[in-house]
Amino acid sequence: MTIDKLKKAFMNNAVKSYLLEQELHKICNNWEKANKLAAEWRLELLEKSTDKKLSMIKNSYVSTAKLSRKGEQSVGIEQQIGGAVTPLALAGPLKISGEYAKGEFYIPIATNEAALVAGLQRGIKAVNAAGGINVVVTRDHMARAPLIECNDIAHAKKISKEIKEKGTLYNKMKIAAEAESKVSRLLDIQPFQQGRMVHLRFVFQTGDSMGMNSATKYSANALRILIEKYPDVKMISLTANMCSDKKASHINVLLGRGKSVETEIIIDAKTIKDIFGVGVGSVERLNYHKNYRGSALAGTISGFNANVANTIAAMFIATGQDAAQITESSSCFTSVETNNNNLHFNASFPCIELATTGGGADFGTAKECLEILGCYGPGKNPGDNVKKLAEIIAAAASCQDLNLLCAEANTYELADSHIRLARGENICSSRK
Amino acid sequence: MTIDKLKKAFMNNAVKSYLLEQELHKICNNWEKANKLAAEWRLELLEKSTDKKLSMIKNSYVSTAKLSRKGEQSVGIEQQIGGAVTPLALAGPLKISGEYAKGEFYIPIATNEAALVAGLQRGIKAVNAAGGINVVVTRDHMARAPLIECNDIAHAKKISKEIKEKGTLYNKMKIAAEAESKVSRLLDIQPFQQGRMVHLRFVFQTGDSMGMNSATKYSANALRILIEKYPDVKMISLTANMCSDKKASHINVLLGRGKSVETEIIIDAKTIKDIFGVGVGSVERLNYHKNYRGSALAGTISGFNANVANTIAAMFIATGQDAAQITESSSCFTSVETNNNNLHFNASFPCIELATTGGGADFGTAKECLEILGCYGPGKNPGDNVKKLAEIIAAAASCQDLNLLCAEANTYELADSHIRLARGENICSSRK
Amino acid sequence: MTIDKLKKAFMNNAVKSYLLEQELHKICNNWEKANKLAAEWRLELLEKSTDKKLSMIKNSYVSTAKLSRKGEQSVGIEQQIGGAVTPLALAGPLKISGEYAKGEFYIPIATNEAALVAGLQRGIKAVNAAGGINVVVTRDHMARAPLIECNDIAHAKKISKEIKEKGTLYNKMKIAAEAESKVSRLLDIQPFQQGRMVHLRFVFQTGDSMGMNSATKYSANALRILIEKYPDVKMISLTANMCSDKKASHINVLLGRGKSVETEIIIDAKTIKDIFGVGVGSVERLNYHKNYRGSALAGTISGFNANVANTIAAMFIATGQDAAQITESSSCFTSVETNNNNLHFNASFPCIELATTGGGADFGTAKECLEILGCYGPGKNPGDNVKKLAEIIAAAASCQDLNLLCAEANTYELADSHIRLARGENICSSRK
Amino acid sequence: MTIDKLKKAFMNNAVKSYLLEQELHKICNNWEKANKLAAEWRLELLEKSTDKKLSMIKNSYVSTAKLSRKGEQSVGIEQQIGGAVTPLALAGPLKISGEYAKGEFYIPIATNEAALVAGLQRGIKAVNAAGGINVVVTRDHMARAPLIECNDIAHAKKISKEIKEKGTLYNKMKIAAEAESKVSRLLDIQPFQQGRMVHLRFVFQTGDSMGMNSATKYSANALRILIEKYPDVKMISLTANMCSDKKASHINVLLGRGKSVETEIIIDAKTIKDIFGVGVGSVERLNYHKNYRGSALAGTISGFNANVANTIAAMFIATGQDAAQITESSSCFTSVETNNNNLHFNASFPCIELATTGGGADFGTAKECLEILGCYGPGKNPGDNVKKLAEIIAAAASCQDLNLLCAEANTYELADSHIRLARGENICSSRK
Repeated sequence: MTIDKLKKAFMNNAVKSYLLEQELHKICNNWEKANKLAAEWRLELLEKSTDKKLSMIKNSYVSTAKLSRKGEQSVGIEQQIGGAVTPLALAGPLKISGEYAKGEFYIPIATNEAALVAGLQRGIKAVNAAGGINVVVTRDHMARAPLIECNDIAHAKKISKEIKEKGTLYNKMKIAAEAESKVSRLLDIQPFQQGRMVHLRFVFQTGDSMGMNSATKYSANALRILIEKYPDVKMISLTANMCSDKKASHINVLLGRGKSVETEIIIDAKTIKDIFGVGVGSVERLNYHKNYRGSALAGTISGFNANVANTIAAMFIATGQDAAQITESSSCFTSVETNNNNLHFNASFPCIELATTGGGADFGTAKECLEILGCYGPGKNPGDNVKKLAEIIAAAASCQDLNLLCAEANTYELADSHIRLARGENICSSRK
Repeated sequence: MTIDKLKKAFMNNAVKSYLLEQELHKICNNWEKANKLAAEWRLELLEKSTDKKLSMIKNSYVSTAKLSRKGEQSVGIEQQIGGAVTPLALAGPLKISGEYAKGEFYIPIATNEAALVAGLQRGIKAVNAAGGINVVVTRDHMARAPLIECNDIAHAKKISKEIKEKGTLYNKMKIAAEAESKVSRLLDIQPFQQGRMVHLRFVFQTGDSMGMNSATKYSANALRILIEKYPDVKMISLTANMCSDKKASHINVLLGRGKSVETEIIIDAKTIKDIFGVGVGSVERLNYHKNYRGSALAGTISGFNANVANTIAAMFIATGQDAAQITESSSCFTSVETNNNNLHFNASFPCIELATTGGGADFGTAKECLEILGCYGPGKNPGDNVKKLAEIIAAAASCQDLNLLCAEANTYELADSHIRLARGENICSSRK
Repeated sequence: MTIDKLKKAFMNNAVKSYLLEQELHKICNNWEKANKLAAEWRLELLEKSTDKKLSMIKNSYVSTAKLSRKGEQSVGIEQQIGGAVTPLALAGPLKISGEYAKGEFYIPIATNEAALVAGLQRGIKAVNAAGGINVVVTRDHMARAPLIECNDIAHAKKISKEIKEKGTLYNKMKIAAEAESKVSRLLDIQPFQQGRMVHLRFVFQTGDSMGMNSATKYSANALRILIEKYPDVKMISLTANMCSDKKASHINVLLGRGKSVETEIIIDAKTIKDIFGVGVGSVERLNYHKNYRGSALAGTISGFNANVANTIAAMFIATGQDAAQITESSSCFTSVETNNNNLHFNASFPCIELATTGGGADFGTAKECLEILGCYGPGKNPGDNVKKLAEIIAAAASCQDLNLLCAEANTYELADSHIRLARGENICSSRK
Repeated sequence: MTIDKLKKAFMNNAVKSYLLEQELHKICNNWEKANKLAAEWRLELLEKSTDKKLSMIKNSYVSTAKLSRKGEQSVGIEQQIGGAVTPLALAGPLKISGEYAKGEFYIPIATNEAALVAGLQRGIKAVNAAGGINVVVTRDHMARAPLIECNDIAHAKKISKEIKEKGTLYNKMKIAAEAESKVSRLLDIQPFQQGRMVHLRFVFQTGDSMGMNSATKYSANALRILIEKYPDVKMISLTANMCSDKKASHINVLLGRGKSVETEIIIDAKTIKDIFGVGVGSVERLNYHKNYRGSALAGTISGFNANVANTIAAMFIATGQDAAQITESSSCFTSVETNNNNLHFNASFPCIELATTGGGADFGTAKECLEILGCYGPGKNPGDNVKKLAEIIAAAASCQDLNLLCAEANTYELADSHIRLARGENICSSRK
């Protein structure tokens, strides 16, 4: 078979799309070439069938093979046709006092939403004027929760108790869970009984990778030990949504998943007035009515903030994170209090799920964005880089939330004067 | 000032980054050139300060000015440095029977998560074998909910009642809300009283745009009418989280936001067995224990599904949506029942927020992806294109969810045999 | 058969307990006597089998037959043995400015919790000193939501749409729903689609009865009309938890059930200081951290208050309400703001479910408690009495919540002085 | 002062109501008499002011002094006027296989809701026919969560970490927490950080008392140790809703409060058919659509059941529990699966808060009801009696839930025949 013949066959639908890389590799023995040609051919066929030029997709092709550390069939994606480009901006520099992120950081933001970067930049201006933002990571783990079925409720209670007591069985499971890993450490197994079913929430420290794949695999390894001892126990699923992955859920808020991060800004009233034209009392009041009273009435379990999702999403896309995890990683409790004419701002992010190595972090523009932030790849100590990234993202999202609260509170103060809504249009254009 | 001098000044931090495009435009009188140079200079400065090559970011630069319909300073982003590339794949074709999407569709997927496209493709295979997927859009509106403060609880009750009764005041507010728009129509104003505060949830039909910006502006216009009549009423904020935007909240589940979409697949047991190696009873049971029992125990208000967020996120990035809205757009209730040896699959998406025109939809690879799907730009009738897109995204996410449930149920059936977890590793590698 | 022989048979387990009233009535032809003897015999048998004296249960027997308007077999309970007594206290008088409750009211409180009445009395003292409490009822309806199954998602959409449009079908259903009632009026039918299923939330105004029984019956009557027109539609259940009855759920918070009530108190700082020994700023701050920040972190959907459930429960038991509805009726959002040295207190009760006629309201101590409040039986205009009761209960619960917040804030202020926890024990004893 | 003079003074409002017992005791030196007279006088004054006879309240007076173990001013209530009577019935006997409740139990039910006892009795019939119900208590603790304020987020992290590590500080706090108690044991202190605030959730085993008062007091004792070491730490409140008391919240579902109880019933299809006239498949399906799909759409966090609140409330009132805790104690996840033509029923109650000693459990009809159940007072081993009571209540509530699911599923099967809703009215009358 020659390359030309293969192409012809493919264009005539005689070769399945998902086999194309492998067929090409058989001929050219070069994964990078095989991957690139496969993408081009798919796109060519698509242009024919749709009768549209798709040159921007083509020109944005990124070889995940070349850039991966393995040099093989594309990693991270199958049936590639090219790349999807999101405009990338640079905000900052932002002064951060974290345990891992210390100093001034430029913030890469991938977005197509007008005003997002401008708003963030204004928030950063205020924060820098106040001397920067403090950040700490308070929890760090990845969770996976397989579901097992026991004989009956008494059996399920017995097994749950045995695991909770951390005796021989627990220790054997821990050894099995850690056997294949150089980095991951099992921190806990938390049983949640529902009738004769038990969700076993495995909690791992997973270094600088996001950790869900390894947590799944290592949980399965530990489960084998359990089932050897209790052959009646059936494994229902390697996960039954008690992890909880890619859903906004309260268990992640309460027990954490990924990194739990706290941020803190103290700004004097004059700075707030100068930059946002608003009094600190109005900001405090708006936070109460919007982020707590309004959110509570809206029935959220995780969204007690103004709009941190904007920054979380923009930085997740910029740094190659799993974009589906924006769903729960944007959980946030924003707090504003005034004290001695200062505004105390705090944002609590219970579950930002992140990686600086593995998956999308390893190649392309994401790798470059991580390099801009000084945290590409595994950290010196496992987890150092990813915690640094968590601190930076939480810090940036906090600046954005501060900005929006102040901008919206400004609306209120205006509204309170007799001008009221006269500037309504400008208000709108300065924010989403 | 020459371009060279300006560059020098910028590189010496004598020109503010956010003013660069404007300064360049003064010299060259060409927005496209000004935008591009500004991005290059910022990146050059960044490469210096970080001592890193950032060529992929540079090469992915996309001029949002050229591609926008206005040809001016970049739209959708400020302080641009280039582009962020997410690998783009093509799944499908998927047979869809919607009211707007009819026929076979190739599905663009932007992701860096291994196995996501492969899993989706397998789900599509099963669905096509069953004759395709049915889809309907059941609700279509964008909501914005300003918060007003009345004199006291009786005053707040009176105003809420007057608006609810849809008399003169409501009609005047409706006229004001619609005055500036060619497309948007006010569907309702829903008052939610909290003490002397009232959240006024404005509900608009907004054609093919996502509609949040216009909803904000038009709500403000309507509020002016209210405040003219009741000068004591104060506007606290143009939004106080009862919209509810970029948070997972139950109000969006219950009342809808963006598009509410229902999907439906009926597959016979043999097809499921052939493709997934699993019985339909196991899939039904897993859906119950995972998507309902597990999700309920995890404390979610919106995440009663396996992993629709994966597909929602991948298609949002591919088609240029507001990525922060992945948070609530991935709300989904997946249901599986068996009946006469058939598997009935249904997924309910209460609030997918989308656009086929405006923002990121207008340019670059996103525009091309929308063209692949045959729904770029405004529809023939306002809203036709965006409802078509909603149907396609919901259909694809349903295929993905079906696939994951079947794959995980397979784990269970294996677990039930004496092989049990022997294939644990394979199970893991076939999914995230 | 004589009474003696029947008793002997019963004591030898030859007569089933639940048939005892009927058998006795056959002999004595007197329901009151039959009911009372049946209760005595059951208790006598129970005393034998347990070897315990149960004289207090016996002495608390209340004939629901005699006191009901029908004079027949006990209404409201089967297999009666006597009465359960909860100690009853009287707090107040409380000054209320409602739309239905105007003036000073003594508040009957059934409880066995120490300090509850004392705390309430202190709250009332503060409220009276401030001139009383304002109250309005903002919503009034009972909901019942049968679940129907349609052929497919398109069919379900069609039927939902037809009902929403309030055309011929809706009107016929409304006529059927109201046909048997002198009082109840159908306010709306709200369809919520889930796949091919539709929850039809029927919303009734039900006069002074709680309304759930009638809402169930009248919904069924209306459903017959729907099924006549669409014979393919199957009724799955007369309720499928979208009502939502006897569960704390967000739909009741958002859309209301029973009575939605708002209360409002404005108290100057000096009064708060004199009575509670605390500054208004501390009370405002505690409300924020406890009732919003704390409640949000705890993952509640309805419990943004200090302890209104205490008063709700105590008055439900006193006035013969359905005690299971304490679950959702204690939903409450308490708010505290300070303004010009005044404390503005507001409590929003979205769903207090009540009756002043029917069920337990009709007899015994409950009837007397309703008479104390001046709202026993049907109101002059349907609903007047029950709305008056709703206003009083919400007002009393607000006084209790104000008291607890102030008492706990006092803890804080003390804690802030160098005495700190020295008075810890007293703090505990003054509250639960 | 004589009794007559005191009465006169009181009737002329010259003596404050809440001081009446003390004034009377000064004269007669007999608490029982003082309490009784005080209640009578209050009622007499009330009869005058309302012009109503309140004889049933008067006749239901119960002296909590005489019946308490202390013989002093009324315990559990202030400003008493008499008693509130709820009709009391006896259901059962119910066969229970618990760890503490073993054998057949008669179930005291205090209610005024028609059909509740009849429905429960039918559920019991089915359960007994199946050989009874299995029950286990899986968690047993009372939680109290004071809120402390630290200097900043780093300080809050440090203190949280130190407590979590269970070193010297934790041990000293534990000793202080247990110092005054003969029974209570501190099981854990769980820190939940929010900015510079930390909720410290103290978890106690509290024997047979409900434990909230002691948990509050002992938490305060432990906090003193913390504040001695860290004088900068401020105590904001002895509770800030992370306990979480008298609100339906997810933290109680996830981590438990009071007793977590699991129940289990296995019934063959024939028994279900004979008693309820329905197939087990219909019951399973209704549980899915009602208790999970419907409840999820309704936005509950704790109410995934049919109507356990009915039984919880009825038994709480009968046995003298804190009725406000019905709110969260009625949290329940009911599950139905069919297997080999058997119906497997399970109900999980995460947080039933109970006592068999202290408060309302100590006297009156409540004490008698506890004696009927064989669990009045402290258990042989601390906690034995209260766990027995928890098992019985959970078992009874399970029977009730099984009954309602089967009754409503019957509606469905009828609806499926051509008779459909013809029996609608009967359906209604057989249930609430």
